[in-house]
Amino acid sequence: MWGIKLNRSSDVSLKRQIYVALREHIIRGNLKAGETLPSTRQLALELQVSRNTIIEAFEMLNVEGYIVRRIGAPTRVAEGLILDTRTESRPSPGIEDIPEYIADFRTGIPDLRLFPRYAWQRITMKALSELCPSLLGYTGPQGMPALRQEIACWLHRSKGLVVDAQDIFITAGATHALHIVAELLYQDAQNIYFEDPCNIEMLKTFINRGFKISYIPVDQYGIQTDHLKNAPGYPVYVTPSHQFPFGGILPAERRAALIRFARHTGSYIIEDDYDSEFRYDGEPVAPLHAMDADRVIYIGTFSKTLFPALRIGYAVVPRNLQQRWCYLRTYTDVQNPPFEQAALAEFLHTRKLDRHISKMRKIYRERRQVLLSSLKEYFGDDWLVWGDAAGLHLTVEFQDAMFDDVFRQTARKELIRITPLDYHCIQKGVHANKLLFGYGHLEPAEIRAGIDLLHTFMKKAGYV
Amino acid sequence: MWGIKLNRSSDVSLKRQIYVALREHIIRGNLKAGETLPSTRQLALELQVSRNTIIEAFEMLNVEGYIVRRIGAPTRVAEGLILDTRTESRPSPGIEDIPEYIADFRTGIPDLRLFPRYAWQRITMKALSELCPSLLGYTGPQGMPALRQEIACWLHRSKGLVVDAQDIFITAGATHALHIVAELLYQDAQNIYFEDPCNIEMLKTFINRGFKISYIPVDQYGIQTDHLKNAPGYPVYVTPSHQFPFGGILPAERRAALIRFARHTGSYIIEDDYDSEFRYDGEPVAPLHAMDADRVIYIGTFSKTLFPALRIGYAVVPRNLQQRWCYLRTYTDVQNPPFEQAALAEFLHTRKLDRHISKMRKIYRERRQVLLSSLKEYFGDDWLVWGDAAGLHLTVEFQDAMFDDVFRQTARKELIRITPLDYHCIQKGVHANKLLFGYGHLEPAEIRAGIDLLHTFMKKAGYV
Repeated sequence: MWGIKLNRSSDVSLKRQIYVALREHIIRGNLKAGETLPSTRQLALELQVSRNTIIEAFEMLNVEGYIVRRIGAPTRVAEGLILDTRTESRPSPGIEDIPEYIADFRTGIPDLRLFPRYAWQRITMKALSELCPSLLGYTGPQGMPALRQEIACWLHRSKGLVVDAQDIFITAGATHALHIVAELLYQDAQNIYFEDPCNIEMLKTFINRGFKISYIPVDQYGIQTDHLKNAPGYPVYVTPSHQFPFGGILPAERRAALIRFARHTGSYIIEDDYDSEFRYDGEPVAPLHAMDADRVIYIGTFSKTLFPALRIGYAVVPRNLQQRWCYLRTYTDVQNPPFEQAALAEFLHTRKLDRHISKMRKIYRERRQVLLSSLKEYFGDDWLVWGDAAGLHLTVEFQDAMFDDVFRQTARKELIRITPLDYHCIQKGVHANKLLFGYGHLEPAEIRAGIDLLHTFMKKAGYV
Repeated sequence: MWGIKLNRSSDVSLKRQIYVALREHIIRGNLKAGETLPSTRQLALELQVSRNTIIEAFEMLNVEGYIVRRIGAPTRVAEGLILDTRTESRPSPGIEDIPEYIADFRTGIPDLRLFPRYAWQRITMKALSELCPSLLGYTGPQGMPALRQEIACWLHRSKGLVVDAQDIFITAGATHALHIVAELLYQDAQNIYFEDPCNIEMLKTFINRGFKISYIPVDQYGIQTDHLKNAPGYPVYVTPSHQFPFGGILPAERRAALIRFARHTGSYIIEDDYDSEFRYDGEPVAPLHAMDADRVIYIGTFSKTLFPALRIGYAVVPRNLQQRWCYLRTYTDVQNPPFEQAALAEFLHTRKLDRHISKMRKIYRERRQVLLSSLKEYFGDDWLVWGDAAGLHLTVEFQDAMFDDVFRQTARKELIRITPLDYHCIQKGVHANKLLFGYGHLEPAEIRAGIDLLHTFMKKAGYV
């Protein structure tokens, strides 16, 4: 009766089931405007529910204006509610399912299996129990003072970078920091200089904001700053500590040139320090930021040193940009959640990050060696490594090979995930003979097996 | 000697202190290009450190190109490094310090003191220990499947809204969801309709993206949809379940009109359901989304039901917008962190949220009553309440009063935080005789004392 089927074992209350059923009938036009509804008594009887249930269901319909109730008059359906039958929606685009790779050389992933889970749990627990209630509310866009202080100390002891905690702005990772930087700088400059090649994903953040990209070629040392001579004053995005993807360390003379350019043109340098913690034959490189705190926006992340899903990064922001930064962050996503911030502050304070990094540095160094020896074992001498001994990936050049997206796709079919360097090039084709090997997340055995599989595939496909 | 002062009790290694000191000298020009550095032996002697420390410090300078070392030749400072002395940076804009309000009627804050801290801690702990390592990596922009499933169930049992978990997209709160919506819709429409008055903060998110705002007046029932007749097809931002700030429930007939408008013009309705969980004389109102899943972007948040700093919200996104949503989220801030998501999923699964909400609903209802009786006690009858008995705030109209920003500022000096409704008006002056009272975060005694203080102030200042 009335096409109402009740599910008495459902989580949804009976009154709500009745309300939903009647509302659907009204919207679909099965119950016409002005039509009389049965009395609550009658409907209660028919549906075998208490009369109060019906009364409450009617009240819900009444409040939302689906029906009209008048004392002494029968309840009627309100006017002007019928909608023509709903347009059929297309099926949702299933998110591309990732195959189970046998050789997975994707870049930028630390080894999550070696993350100190229990230490992190204990610290989070501590943070949870000690956090004062006010920190559950809105605490402002800059981030937790304790964490900013700890990051300031850590930048000093690990990279010799002297910054004031009040100039540090917590973000939800490096991408998020760049997203805010894009919002921040867009009003003044609609163009931006990028290294070519660069991390093409970071590029997209600026393209989405509407930036036009001007690219500057990179050699084994990093961005070729002579191209900036007499160039218009747009912001410059650089990775001076460990150029992505080539891995060069930008020489001091080019660093000075970048600073001079920014000062001369009144523009800003965006310094993305994405993994300088991992250098294998020396100390981490000092950030460009040390040369001029007013012209450099320094961006750091804990995605590589701890884990990507942590979603905590930070930016050291020039003072004349800070007010606008706060404004934009407030109307972008307000702030970071407090628990990870408190936990990370403690993790830094107790030097657990320092210990974790030095432990992982040893492990990654070894894996890099394994990768190199495996390459030598399978590919002999017709390949060449680019860049400094650092980071979680390697750029390898193969004699007269051509790696394009076809290569990537065919390799994928063989369950090999590997990125041709061309993917990260703005100007395509210039570096088509290079491949990127991410190794940080792979154990030595996995690396060897991966290179073995890759070599077999490349021989078969005629790439070597 | 060499102006190097070493702090042997510092966290910073001696080699790094030496490196930093020399680098500064070089950048500042105290050590000129080509100038010879002392031998490592000599410097070690002078600084009373091991020679290896000096060698390592020199190596750091060498790697970064500050100095040039040649076998058999003295170490020299590299060329072209001197930067003119750093421009003095302006002092940072201290974030406006908030006074200790005696009467704090700010809106939209739940009572954080009543948040079930320990239950949340236990659940987070469980989530932390059970989370599989892969979830520490990148897991995609849509959010944790378990959480999306739980939200789908919860929407059904609490609001009678039937949605597929695959259409739910987790965000870092409602503001963040709106930020992505703004990015999403900007390409097609650079204009958007807003209710007037509305939550002016939400407006800013769209203005920052570059939207032009067209406003539509609101009466006690909500947005006056007749103004949309023959209007151009821009997106419409609405709060139909509990209009902010007036508190009306949008009648079904106007809901149907909104849907017809969106279908007819091919535009979208942005439904912000910011606090419909808290209705005091009836069930939560059914979302507009139930009328057409293809035309309505439904936005929900847990900031009011749990706590603002949680930073978890969600959007139910029409299917033809989902691919673009994923793309934009990926290049905005990638994804939410996993722990809060896992904890919230469990919190929903075990019905703890349902219990917490029904508990808080009773408490907020009582506080609303206390506010009303206090107003009666102090202001007699020359005031009028707007809107439905719901939410965490009240809109009160005072006979022939005028509340502007001067009022807000003077009240602030008396340690009273209260917002004139005019602040949330696009068209200023239309609703100047109304005030907003946020009461959710205040205990009955605090409410009474606050109204007392407010009344004294308003009498003294001649507002009543």
